[in-house]
Amino acid sequence: LAPVYRDMPLTVFEHMSGLARDLGAINLGQGFPDDPPHPALLNALAHATAEKSHQYPPMAGLPELRRAIARFYARTQHLAIAPEGVIVTSGATEAIAAAILGVVSPGDEVLLFAPAYDAYAPMIRRAGGVPVFIPLRPPHWGYDRTAIDAAITPRTRALVLNDPLNPTGTLASPADLAMLAQVCTAHDLIAICDEVWENVRFDGNPHASLLAQPGMAARTVKIGSAGKIFGVTGWKVGWLIAAPEMAAVLARAHQFLTFTTPPMLQWAVAAGLDQPAIAQACSDRWAQTRSALLEGLSREGFAVLDSAATWFACIDLAASGIPLDDRTFAEQAVREARVASIPLSALWEGPDAPRHIVRLCHCKPEALLEQAITQLARWR
Amino acid sequence: LAPVYRDMPLTVFEHMSGLARDLGAINLGQGFPDDPPHPALLNALAHATAEKSHQYPPMAGLPELRRAIARFYARTQHLAIAPEGVIVTSGATEAIAAAILGVVSPGDEVLLFAPAYDAYAPMIRRAGGVPVFIPLRPPHWGYDRTAIDAAITPRTRALVLNDPLNPTGTLASPADLAMLAQVCTAHDLIAICDEVWENVRFDGNPHASLLAQPGMAARTVKIGSAGKIFGVTGWKVGWLIAAPEMAAVLARAHQFLTFTTPPMLQWAVAAGLDQPAIAQACSDRWAQTRSALLEGLSREGFAVLDSAATWFACIDLAASGIPLDDRTFAEQAVREARVASIPLSALWEGPDAPRHIVRLCHCKPEALLEQAITQLARWR
Ligand SMILES: CSCCC(=O)C(=O)O
Ligand SMILES: CSCCC(=O)C(=O)O
Repeated sequence: LAPVYRDMPLTVFEHMSGLARDLGAINLGQGFPDDPPHPALLNALAHATAEKSHQYPPMAGLPELRRAIARFYARTQHLAIAPEGVIVTSGATEAIAAAILGVVSPGDEVLLFAPAYDAYAPMIRRAGGVPVFIPLRPPHWGYDRTAIDAAITPRTRALVLNDPLNPTGTLASPADLAMLAQVCTAHDLIAICDEVWENVRFDGNPHASLLAQPGMAARTVKIGSAGKIFGVTGWKVGWLIAAPEMAAVLARAHQFLTFTTPPMLQWAVAAGLDQPAIAQACSDRWAQTRSALLEGLSREGFAVLDSAATWFACIDLAASGIPLDDRTFAEQAVREARVASIPLSALWEGPDAPRHIVRLCHCKPEALLEQAITQLARWR
Repeated sequence: LAPVYRDMPLTVFEHMSGLARDLGAINLGQGFPDDPPHPALLNALAHATAEKSHQYPPMAGLPELRRAIARFYARTQHLAIAPEGVIVTSGATEAIAAAILGVVSPGDEVLLFAPAYDAYAPMIRRAGGVPVFIPLRPPHWGYDRTAIDAAITPRTRALVLNDPLNPTGTLASPADLAMLAQVCTAHDLIAICDEVWENVRFDGNPHASLLAQPGMAARTVKIGSAGKIFGVTGWKVGWLIAAPEMAAVLARAHQFLTFTTPPMLQWAVAAGLDQPAIAQACSDRWAQTRSALLEGLSREGFAVLDSAATWFACIDLAASGIPLDDRTFAEQAVREARVASIPLSALWEGPDAPRHIVRLCHCKPEALLEQAITQLARWR
């Protein structure tokens, strides 16, 4: 069997969720909301289920959804996206897989930043490529041009940027984006931009995509997720966006991964994107849960790293006076404090992983967050 | 961009469906039913949408669905399948992709039979493997041991068997299955068995899987599809089945293709599989539509090849006295007779494609089938 899968351990998300389930712990590990979907979104799904075809939608997605996605980006990010450049996928995970299989050929090197979501490197390896990790450093996780330049070789073909960044919840600055665009254009790289957290931002600014930087429109694959925008992680409706010519090639990769995505979910997402109040209600709600987690942790003396986006916040164990490394903390906290978390070093490839940071998920009812904070505070 | 996708033409299914749409033709090309889903299945979906979580289900599928799939095979095929060996995927296309990415390493040769569904070869190439096609010959499309033995080299790693076979609608005989199992065990091959049509059989026999042959349990990946069993091609719920150790590795491939499949659809399929009357009603209905197509075509003097399964029937153009090759027929018929079909040679790689066979889809209302037959008969 293919070595990349054969030699792979259980993911940290499954491992921690499994422990949480078995131990009856509060699960602030894997990121997903506990709230039910917005009623208007559920209505749209019920309506589509009752009224629309249950057969194959077009391979690249319902035209209505592709247009709704283009409108969503025009409205929220002032991006002019052609609907033909939008390919609907069965979740952002499939968009990542299609982008990597479509872009990476054997021997290609792909730049990644650590920490990194765990889906990129295995697909790059399975495509025959070589992941080249560039470490970001706490507490600001900034992008360092010297380190990037040093990592580039004649084989470098692409760069994966996850912005906003999971697990840290931080953002690339305008200067970072300009610099990354210069790197891509100077070295003729394709940028695979996982921007699934673009609408889960708490700094009051609209998301700024690398796609919008000079020279990037023809060399960027931008990936988005309805699951993240609307807090419905099980819906598995995502998309990739690229210049129409590149999108047509990536659509072939998609075609042989899932071919298409359930029509009732596509219709519901299209309806949801066209009602700005729904996404707004979601991010307003997450602003509340985020405050609850951050304030509760600070009150109890946990040092929390700065962040501005995502469903996550990171505790600095060292600055909190907790003399445990992140994995030990996570393993003990789920068993003894009955709170599941994600050790940041589990999302790190390469040397010098920080070992003093754990990630907690905030998109949960306040009472549950309070209980988790109390359990952690009593136990620490 | 990856050459396998860059140099790929539009698939024949999209091409013909697009023409049918643009020309207002009756679409007997791409295979999908026109009937709405069975009411009990829709009820199960509405119930799950209202009552169940909308967040990530477990990566390998809902335990309830994995168990329901195992029960389905125990009941319909007398197979003893462990639920841990069942991995739920976002349609059978994803199961095919996960199986190929999980099994095929660069340089591996994979045996395939022509004609072949169009999803296998591109994924094999993208995995770094080499598709090796063995032609099947009309009218019986039998498997020829001499040709298989001649195709095997020390690099042969796996075999893809699609049984029942799309596009021909034919079945591997018990002797074929025994022979294919001997080949796999003698040469240590993994069999990737696309059996999505297993429950769309009209010969009165239960489906017999290559998995059940001696020595095959540990070396077979069996692929199934709720979309085909229940006639809901948009639901995109499929699965792969393998010995639990191999399934655990293939689950890693699945994890990085889609991670998981929408929970409401998984619940509805689980409920559907546990109500044998639903699948029975579907195949009873397709026995009617099949008779309508076969009888109508014969009445109008079209020679139809023998088949026993799938939503398809094949016309032998030569034996029907139609002096056109299959692609010319399909292109002219959709424009002039306003009936879309699939030329068999579009699903053929390698030399000596038969050029006198077109595939028609029968799972449509009888009145529509009658109209299509009339239009074809007037035009020919
Ligand atoms: C697909 S499991 C991981 C979910 C997620 O995005 C996260 O927790 O980071
Ligand atoms: C996914 S498009 C092809 C559908 C199908 O199974 C067929 O028509 O053969």
